[in-house]
Amino acid sequence: MEKPAVILLSGGLDSATTGAIARAEGFRLHALSVDYGQRHRFELEAAARVAKALDVERHVVVKVDLAVFGGSALTDEIEVPKDRPDEQMSQDIPVTYVPARNTVMLSLALAHAETLGAADIFIGVNAVDYSGYPDCRSEFIEAFSRLANLATKAGVEGRANFQIHTPLIELTKGQIIRRGVELGVDYGLTHTCYDPNPAGISCGRCDACQLRLAGFEEAGVVDPLEYQRKAE
Amino acid sequence: MEKPAVILLSGGLDSATTGAIARAEGFRLHALSVDYGQRHRFELEAAARVAKALDVERHVVVKVDLAVFGGSALTDEIEVPKDRPDEQMSQDIPVTYVPARNTVMLSLALAHAETLGAADIFIGVNAVDYSGYPDCRSEFIEAFSRLANLATKAGVEGRANFQIHTPLIELTKGQIIRRGVELGVDYGLTHTCYDPNPAGISCGRCDACQLRLAGFEEAGVVDPLEYQRKAE
Repeated sequence: MEKPAVILLSGGLDSATTGAIARAEGFRLHALSVDYGQRHRFELEAAARVAKALDVERHVVVKVDLAVFGGSALTDEIEVPKDRPDEQMSQDIPVTYVPARNTVMLSLALAHAETLGAADIFIGVNAVDYSGYPDCRSEFIEAFSRLANLATKAGVEGRANFQIHTPLIELTKGQIIRRGVELGVDYGLTHTCYDPNPAGISCGRCDACQLRLAGFEEAGVVDPLEYQRKAE
Repeated sequence: MEKPAVILLSGGLDSATTGAIARAEGFRLHALSVDYGQRHRFELEAAARVAKALDVERHVVVKVDLAVFGGSALTDEIEVPKDRPDEQMSQDIPVTYVPARNTVMLSLALAHAETLGAADIFIGVNAVDYSGYPDCRSEFIEAFSRLANLATKAGVEGRANFQIHTPLIELTKGQIIRRGVELGVDYGLTHTCYDPNPAGISCGRCDACQLRLAGFEEAGVVDPLEYQRKAE
């Protein structure tokens, strides 16, 4: 019998690939998307499309208004940086960092998993292209796994040994895309841009679009998405 | 200058006392209440009253609909147990346990703290009277502190050393109440009952009311709250 797992689905390229990997490993998926006050709805629409393509048991969207705290260009009125050169993108923690985002997301995934009787949680974090985000590193993920087993009835009673799966953590964007293409992921369903136009068309210039486009180039695959203007 | 701290304020007796202790230790408080789909609004109203009495800088209420996951009598249509004898209350993890609740709450407090530039978080967990809840134990709190310092920009950059303060963790309910009375806490502002009537009057019979009433008795103090019927 297939084991249940919770997958955090943002609607982006990474979580879509993570979902395909989890399916290929034989898990029955329960998708969880967190509506944390993102500035646009396109991400959640993409998450719903990807969930359907992954044939999940159920797709739950939890609203958590992280914008009440402020502090990030993704939830706040801070301007999204555009056309940044590579060197600058890989330095510093960018203003698009949402405080404690993965901690909040994994906590919610843990609550969902415990209720379902699932012990496996998949998250598409990646330490290579997002080296600036502290909560994308394996030290963080290991600390969260430890916490999960202390935090829950199922963990404490020994009924579950929670595991946080991060199949992309050591992959480059190009490797992620190649793996996804092998598994039949339709990247046309995903959404990546931090700053799409009102019709949902990606800008092609924010850090996220630049990383995505560079990844497709590295993978030697054509990105099926349309862009307002592709970065050089 | 007073240091800022985030305090998780439920509106109950424990968090009101924790707030008074944090104030007495010289912290400037930012109160955070989590509306996780509780079955009644009286808790949040009590939290607002307590926040005002604590003279907090700001009181933020974050909504997170944990009820979408199901699995607890506090968010679900499971019946709240009444008139349980002491032995039964201290055994087993009760159905009023909300999956991963303190993990979710502390994650949100961490997001808030990081945004504010605060490194101190107060939570009124108590291992004595809630021995059945895994996320009220010090092992859990220590694991969360470790996580917090790995999860955040401020922690990783060494600008903050996050600390989770749990001043009540080893106290009995009676000791908590005596400490609160010394600090001038008005327990008439708090709300404890899991199952109040439509006017907000406490039942006096659920586990929470029973623990509260026993605590006031132990402290030798009269509970200022009104009850529908006090347990024997």
